[in-house]
Amino acid sequence: MKTNYRNVTLLGGFFKEKEDLNRAVTLDAVYDRFAESGRIAAFSCNWKEGMPNRPHFFWDSDVAKWMEGAAYVLSREQDTDLQSKVEHLIDEIEKNQGEDGYFNIYFTVCEPDKRFSNRDWHELYCAGHLMEAAVAYYEATGRDRFLRLMEKYADYIEKVFVREKSAPYETPGHEEIELALYRMYTCTGKTKYLDLMKHFLERRGQEDNHEAQIFHAARYAQSHLPIRRQKEAFGHSVRAMYLYAGMADLARETGDRELLDACRSLFDDVTKKKMYITGGIGSTCMGEAFTAAYDLPNNTAYTETCASIGMMFFANRLFQADPTRDSRYDDAVELEFFNGAISGLSLDGECFFYENPLEIYLAERRRIISTNDRERFPITQRPKIFGCSCCPPNIVRLLASLGEYIYAYDETRDTVYIRQFAESVYNDGKHTVKVQTAYPEDGVIRIESDCAFAVRMPKWCQAFKADALYRAENGYAYFEKGTVTLTLDMTPCLVTSRLGVVRNIGKAAYRRGPIVYCAEGVDNQDIQTLYFDKTANRAATAMKDDLLGICLTVKGYRRLETVADGLYAPLDEAFAPCEIRLIPYASFANRGESDMAVYLMYR
Amino acid sequence: MKTNYRNVTLLGGFFKEKEDLNRAVTLDAVYDRFAESGRIAAFSCNWKEGMPNRPHFFWDSDVAKWMEGAAYVLSREQDTDLQSKVEHLIDEIEKNQGEDGYFNIYFTVCEPDKRFSNRDWHELYCAGHLMEAAVAYYEATGRDRFLRLMEKYADYIEKVFVREKSAPYETPGHEEIELALYRMYTCTGKTKYLDLMKHFLERRGQEDNHEAQIFHAARYAQSHLPIRRQKEAFGHSVRAMYLYAGMADLARETGDRELLDACRSLFDDVTKKKMYITGGIGSTCMGEAFTAAYDLPNNTAYTETCASIGMMFFANRLFQADPTRDSRYDDAVELEFFNGAISGLSLDGECFFYENPLEIYLAERRRIISTNDRERFPITQRPKIFGCSCCPPNIVRLLASLGEYIYAYDETRDTVYIRQFAESVYNDGKHTVKVQTAYPEDGVIRIESDCAFAVRMPKWCQAFKADALYRAENGYAYFEKGTVTLTLDMTPCLVTSRLGVVRNIGKAAYRRGPIVYCAEGVDNQDIQTLYFDKTANRAATAMKDDLLGICLTVKGYRRLETVADGLYAPLDEAFAPCEIRLIPYASFANRGESDMAVYLMYR
Repeated sequence: MKTNYRNVTLLGGFFKEKEDLNRAVTLDAVYDRFAESGRIAAFSCNWKEGMPNRPHFFWDSDVAKWMEGAAYVLSREQDTDLQSKVEHLIDEIEKNQGEDGYFNIYFTVCEPDKRFSNRDWHELYCAGHLMEAAVAYYEATGRDRFLRLMEKYADYIEKVFVREKSAPYETPGHEEIELALYRMYTCTGKTKYLDLMKHFLERRGQEDNHEAQIFHAARYAQSHLPIRRQKEAFGHSVRAMYLYAGMADLARETGDRELLDACRSLFDDVTKKKMYITGGIGSTCMGEAFTAAYDLPNNTAYTETCASIGMMFFANRLFQADPTRDSRYDDAVELEFFNGAISGLSLDGECFFYENPLEIYLAERRRIISTNDRERFPITQRPKIFGCSCCPPNIVRLLASLGEYIYAYDETRDTVYIRQFAESVYNDGKHTVKVQTAYPEDGVIRIESDCAFAVRMPKWCQAFKADALYRAENGYAYFEKGTVTLTLDMTPCLVTSRLGVVRNIGKAAYRRGPIVYCAEGVDNQDIQTLYFDKTANRAATAMKDDLLGICLTVKGYRRLETVADGLYAPLDEAFAPCEIRLIPYASFANRGESDMAVYLMYR
Repeated sequence: MKTNYRNVTLLGGFFKEKEDLNRAVTLDAVYDRFAESGRIAAFSCNWKEGMPNRPHFFWDSDVAKWMEGAAYVLSREQDTDLQSKVEHLIDEIEKNQGEDGYFNIYFTVCEPDKRFSNRDWHELYCAGHLMEAAVAYYEATGRDRFLRLMEKYADYIEKVFVREKSAPYETPGHEEIELALYRMYTCTGKTKYLDLMKHFLERRGQEDNHEAQIFHAARYAQSHLPIRRQKEAFGHSVRAMYLYAGMADLARETGDRELLDACRSLFDDVTKKKMYITGGIGSTCMGEAFTAAYDLPNNTAYTETCASIGMMFFANRLFQADPTRDSRYDDAVELEFFNGAISGLSLDGECFFYENPLEIYLAERRRIISTNDRERFPITQRPKIFGCSCCPPNIVRLLASLGEYIYAYDETRDTVYIRQFAESVYNDGKHTVKVQTAYPEDGVIRIESDCAFAVRMPKWCQAFKADALYRAENGYAYFEKGTVTLTLDMTPCLVTSRLGVVRNIGKAAYRRGPIVYCAEGVDNQDIQTLYFDKTANRAATAMKDDLLGICLTVKGYRRLETVADGLYAPLDEAFAPCEIRLIPYASFANRGESDMAVYLMYR
């Protein structure tokens, strides 16, 4: 099973729009913000106490993710300006890398004596992101300088953590280097990187590994159990996703069934018990973490953009690792991409959400707290940069490598998998597949393939039609080579939640195809008084809005005030029929600050 | 207009039960906990650094409130043991009071050089509670030693704050002394205490009074405006209530219309915009404070017991101050007493709630936060004492002086007001009124009076019947002297909230007479899946439970799970008819930890 974004050319539709927006706006916007905040200059490692823009210990990773995104762009086009920005950073890395191979902005200039002294100071995480960028840059451009520098760094890390064991901890506090080392291994073919990746994975949560006390709890950093015994998702959701992605890589590499089973359990635990309808994961700001099953509050949802992107990494890898080729992994990728991940980026491509709540009642957020303190809620407008700005460059690298998620080639079955629906061409030199579609504007998908192919049958789709014979297996429709036109039923419908999700009882959300909808105050006043008309469930009108995407108009009711005076009165209800305008969830907060709700009452 | 608890003898019913429980259990339980925690011994002022039980700057007030409660008890009966406990405390106060009149446990032994240096260190608040206790003890027993000590203290305070102005602030951070000084004035007849009360009230929120910065915001301590311009309730809810009670006292004393109008506006703002259906006020733990209008979250409701008791103080005083004799004040007293205030005491009389939430979903509160931190929710079981244990002795003094709220005599109208319904006798030496009733078990009230009398017509009551002629005015029914039997319609019914209360839309609560109900998990599994049957709204069955009071059985439905797998599915609903058992809200959390909700869905 192989995926390779370089074999995929996007030609139109939602994926292409986002790829283009990233290229035209986001890539430069993120670089400029990083330059303004001192992150780029920090790579020259001449910061001294008293100077502005003191580096932070996660800055390497912010810039490395941007470099990785730039590399993907450079694989498709020449851009000397862009390339020179990357080369400049590589120059600085080369210049400031230690003789021993060590490189980290923060510890080089701010706390040189603290190198590898604290498990939670993100050094291995930063190293991982630099390695991913180096691999991407080499694969995109053929230029291997950065890769060689990072090989040297990886060798040094191997020395410190395996041969000398001189650090006071054994595994990273924030996982990432595991999957980076796997990329180093697949890129260079050197098994020492696979061995080091295995080392970090296998030592995690071992009883003789005293790393449990970080942030007061081992579960925070997924160090509570050895990896094969981890069956429930716990702790910091981004760390969890990166770890699970690395576990899936190792399971694919080694065919380890026990490890694959752990990955499947973790995937099920997340998607069946701990995921918002938008794909958002990690429901609390406390520790940016998973909580208990079904604990999915809407107004305080943390649901970090990076966690949704991490879920795409994990699902993408698990699809490749799991020989059942189950469609649930790609269903999850689709859900994230159209909703919880892409909501992290404003429609103009310049602003970002770190958190992606499912409900905003501004009055609640504007509680007049007499102390001037406020209860903590996610912010309601996307800023251009954050102090902890991990999400923006994660979006950059995601949107520059979307081909990774759209197709895959399975050598054992000699089959191309069409995993996501996008106007595009797949060409790996041996096989060519063309997909024509306006999806998700409509559900008609025309496929032309010179080899056998499989097409995902999305679980949200209640009627999947094809004008050719196919064999359905684990959510994929298998076709012989040739031409086929598919029609996916995109009728919008109300979706309900399992009753354990206490805050959703009596409420429902609209979904059309993979897209989850929300109501905004800017379109509908007092959204808390709106009820969907459940008898008109499947009668919504879909209409394209140039800014927001496909919007819905649905029948509903507005509840009228019946309490004449004061706060409470014997029950009496009055409703007026009305139309409710819904927009794609990911398009919320693009027209000023507004109330917003994914779930409304229904009657 | 006069109220005097000593003119009232409770003979039976809910008020009497609580008075007896307090006498038999709570009074001693609070004293014992205060003794165990060092609060009693602290009055000997021999604590030194290194010793256990370091005094806290609010300890004087805790014990003073208990002394006030003990005084009320001693007005009704001889109890040499109880009296000697109070006398012992007075001995210690006398022994340790400064030559200048100053008395405070904490500042005497812990920080003697910090006397009156920080507005928020509760010294004037503690002084006020000691004064209230001294007045109560003198009026109950005729023993004036404590009162004389407190007069000396009040004189010293007058010197510091009025004559010398030597403190770095002008008015108390936590109001209380205002209403205490009014009691000192009415008890002794000395106008200097009225003057000092006026001083503290009138200086509050004056532009040349730089006290705004306490706790970062003037509104926290109601110092944002002069008292007559305060029309909306802000800040710490207990502080607010004590201030407004003092304002009402001053309005009564002086007939100041502008001040009375401010009190009325504040009362309306609280009861019509910021009060839970249970009477709970102060919806956020942040600053224990009021927030915005209609911001009444159920699960995180702070709703301090002291705030509800404070609301009873304010309403009781405002009833007396407002010549309209409007029943809304006594409606508020009744609501608080049967619900949000009394819920602060366990049914066994030994345990207390500081916060009184309207909804408990244990799963939500048990969120597995990987950091081992938890999001903040109110506790779910009543403990025997708190570090900040203001509520328990507030309950003690309330329950020992209930007669204060039940009757009042208006000299100008020569009318006895029957404000609350309790089996009782009123006798002020001139007039006698007898009330026979099983209220709130039923709504039949038999009254025998040797003078004209007025009976409250509760706003919750949809049918008020009397077997004699009466004149209705502002919610009171005015009768000539004689005998009358009233019948109040106590039919339970569903109550809805104004739509601005976002969290209550689509939900309703049951109320029977003044009593608000809740569902507990111990009686009904998975209460979040229960729906009331709105067509059976007025068909609830009421039945007495010896522990819990009058309970209700109502028709409803249980929503059945329709999501076969995972978290989300197209809307499909299934319900099974069921019975829902409801208990009085104030009786919740008396049978172990349990889910609880005042509001349920309905259909």
